[in-house]
Amino acid sequence: MAFHLVQSLLTPGHFRSAWRLPHADPFAYLDIDHFRRLARIAEEATIDAVFLGDGPALRGEIAHAPDTGLDPLILLTALAGATERLGLVATTSTTYNSPYNVARRFNALDHVTKGRAGVNVVTTLSAAAAANFGLAEHPDKTTRYRRAREFLSVVTQLWDAWEPGALLGDKPSGRYADRDLIHDIDHVGEFFSVRGPLPVPASPQGRPVVVQAGGSDGGLALAAEFADLVFTVAHTRGKAIAFRDGIRARAAASGRDPGDVKVSLGVVVLVASTEAEAARREHELNESLPIEPLAAQVAASLGLPPGRFGPDDAIRAADLPELPLGEIGSVGFQVSTRALIAEGPVTLRELVHRSAGGAGHRLLVGTPESVANDLETWWRAGAADGFTIMPADTAVDFENVAREVVPVLQRRGLFHQDYPEGTLRDRLGLGYHPGSGGPAAQRPWLATAAAASAAASGSR
Amino acid sequence: MAFHLVQSLLTPGHFRSAWRLPHADPFAYLDIDHFRRLARIAEEATIDAVFLGDGPALRGEIAHAPDTGLDPLILLTALAGATERLGLVATTSTTYNSPYNVARRFNALDHVTKGRAGVNVVTTLSAAAAANFGLAEHPDKTTRYRRAREFLSVVTQLWDAWEPGALLGDKPSGRYADRDLIHDIDHVGEFFSVRGPLPVPASPQGRPVVVQAGGSDGGLALAAEFADLVFTVAHTRGKAIAFRDGIRARAAASGRDPGDVKVSLGVVVLVASTEAEAARREHELNESLPIEPLAAQVAASLGLPPGRFGPDDAIRAADLPELPLGEIGSVGFQVSTRALIAEGPVTLRELVHRSAGGAGHRLLVGTPESVANDLETWWRAGAADGFTIMPADTAVDFENVAREVVPVLQRRGLFHQDYPEGTLRDRLGLGYHPGSGGPAAQRPWLATAAAASAAASGSR
Repeated sequence: MAFHLVQSLLTPGHFRSAWRLPHADPFAYLDIDHFRRLARIAEEATIDAVFLGDGPALRGEIAHAPDTGLDPLILLTALAGATERLGLVATTSTTYNSPYNVARRFNALDHVTKGRAGVNVVTTLSAAAAANFGLAEHPDKTTRYRRAREFLSVVTQLWDAWEPGALLGDKPSGRYADRDLIHDIDHVGEFFSVRGPLPVPASPQGRPVVVQAGGSDGGLALAAEFADLVFTVAHTRGKAIAFRDGIRARAAASGRDPGDVKVSLGVVVLVASTEAEAARREHELNESLPIEPLAAQVAASLGLPPGRFGPDDAIRAADLPELPLGEIGSVGFQVSTRALIAEGPVTLRELVHRSAGGAGHRLLVGTPESVANDLETWWRAGAADGFTIMPADTAVDFENVAREVVPVLQRRGLFHQDYPEGTLRDRLGLGYHPGSGGPAAQRPWLATAAAASAAASGSR
Repeated sequence: MAFHLVQSLLTPGHFRSAWRLPHADPFAYLDIDHFRRLARIAEEATIDAVFLGDGPALRGEIAHAPDTGLDPLILLTALAGATERLGLVATTSTTYNSPYNVARRFNALDHVTKGRAGVNVVTTLSAAAAANFGLAEHPDKTTRYRRAREFLSVVTQLWDAWEPGALLGDKPSGRYADRDLIHDIDHVGEFFSVRGPLPVPASPQGRPVVVQAGGSDGGLALAAEFADLVFTVAHTRGKAIAFRDGIRARAAASGRDPGDVKVSLGVVVLVASTEAEAARREHELNESLPIEPLAAQVAASLGLPPGRFGPDDAIRAADLPELPLGEIGSVGFQVSTRALIAEGPVTLRELVHRSAGGAGHRLLVGTPESVANDLETWWRAGAADGFTIMPADTAVDFENVAREVVPVLQRRGLFHQDYPEGTLRDRLGLGYHPGSGGPAAQRPWLATAAAASAAASGSR
């Protein structure tokens, strides 16, 4: 038994100000060679997958730091050619795409990577995106999640619509396919009417791995129903354990095996060979942060009145407004940060520092041994099935995690020594889905229904 | 002065029945290794670009032959890692996508390929697609092209919205970008409202190469206004010359330099080392065709009544209904085929054979020398600025064209010996666009406005 590791490619890092450090190439986030190098480092370390978040808009931060980058599906697909086993998880907005196109693109990514594709579905928090897609107003969260559930229902139906054996390729008779094994989905719902099917058969994973990150009630309901992997954030171990227990219970209530929903806990990692060097780098990164705008941003995301608290004023639990969570930003971030403040007064500066420049995730600073200790402790406590490592300074920490922390985890038997056989789905210990030919099927569309069924039952 | 060459990756070939031949892998159209091999062959031959058509739906042909394949943007992006200089032109529907997403994806493809991206915009002929995108009926051609023009207007505005020098990356001050050099486009039109800008700066080409193929009046108007490269089809040289003259005149009327619109003439090529072997292969391919359904399909696309003409009945010009062209299929195909019938009676079987199984393009069969002669003659007559080579049987003819025909063209000085410096746009002899840093700028977003302007004027 071991845990999974996903690494975020976010550049310059979860400290967005890392571009200012002396060693940094400030424009690396646009540079395919930079990402190819990271992908190869991750693959050498047998990391399960790399990941890129996204939102289809330019945000205000560009004045201070690299903002949203290149389209992540294109960037990750370009990395497919530089790697052979690494999983590739790209973020896609269900609010600003059509389910037919998304189902088709990730089916294609799964085909061209031979079973390494994952899709992180988000409903897109940034209202700036709405103006790029002809909407006068950003849809509210409830509507976005209702659309996302229908969206994923359509996408998974499309992925499942070709039965194994549908392609015949019978040269003598000229029969290429058995159309009776390729099903229209004839979906008609609130948001979408989609006849289907996709033009091409099921991909090696059947369904690419579905990742979900939202911590609101709508997000959790979506995750329980459709997600294979749930990204989450927690500043306290108790909160992480409660989250994982909750999502597993919800999955069971949806009729799924709780073991088929894996929780990947996000943690920002800064790792150096000594504690002193780690502390020096943390100080350097903190000093690079533009503290005034970030403190204001954290204050706003907690619902505090603008200008009332400076970076060094202490915030107490009593200062926080009793808002309906979810109207002013990420629910996951608020729950997590409020839990921290509940333990005692914290300044905005400390909140900015402890959440890696306001990114909202827990910051873990240390040596390879101490970082490995922390991950092991959280995992053994049942806080996660694995971790999504977000490098504090990607130019340094991505490689340090892969080359220094991973070997420690491998020595302890907490992480695989080499890539296990099979697809990304196999490696994450996830169940198969209709349409999937199972781990051995390189060309699942050729498998007979009987063979696919045998492969599926043998793997459970 | 020489011409350009684009090769189609369509598999199994423009004879869709080529999957039935003894050497064929019937499932190659789903196999990334097959496409990687083709891309490397093309790059060794210094082919300007490879191309993939598309339509977002499963069509009826799947019973007889591989249908629409993997999403072409994903497939071509995956090939980016296997190549370094080859241009990559993916087809995208303007009817079934959002302009913001398309602008962003092709900007990303251009970034990750360092200036090799092209987008072939189509309005999607197949009514089957409508049902996959929630439309009760496929929009009519006029509406589709009105949308396409507005679509391209938005896309090009988005590509142009970051001025050179917008990214500063000034470490001491912490100023990352000058937001005043990044412009909202604030487009409000009949189909789209898009504020912009894209989250990332202009790509190496500024604007990825825009390709257009439709031969209807709406298509030609679109091409005159926006296209860098126009794909077309012609069975007779006179028709091709008239088309090229026409599109150049339209471009001039739109205020563009006619030399900035290149015509790429589609031709299906079957090439073998001897005429006898070529004839044998042609016969073999013709025999592999399912003649009954293809003859019926050609008859229907000409507006002939179902069942009235068998495969071996002669069709005369007088048999053709006087339809408003464009209501029953591709205008380019009809104009081209009607011109052929006007020269004398032709059977449906002959039409199927002469158009490579009904694909609608001219079939050119011969040796490397005779194929080169044909291309040279058409090009010298002013029929094209270059050719889009559609292999009759991709498993054989793609490689034969690259390895046998190209050297003949190179010896004659009709095709470059090695990739010229610069981007795909440079190689095609196309002008620059606002936002482009010019051929020398690896990182155009860093160029000052003055430097970019000097680079652009130096290249004209």
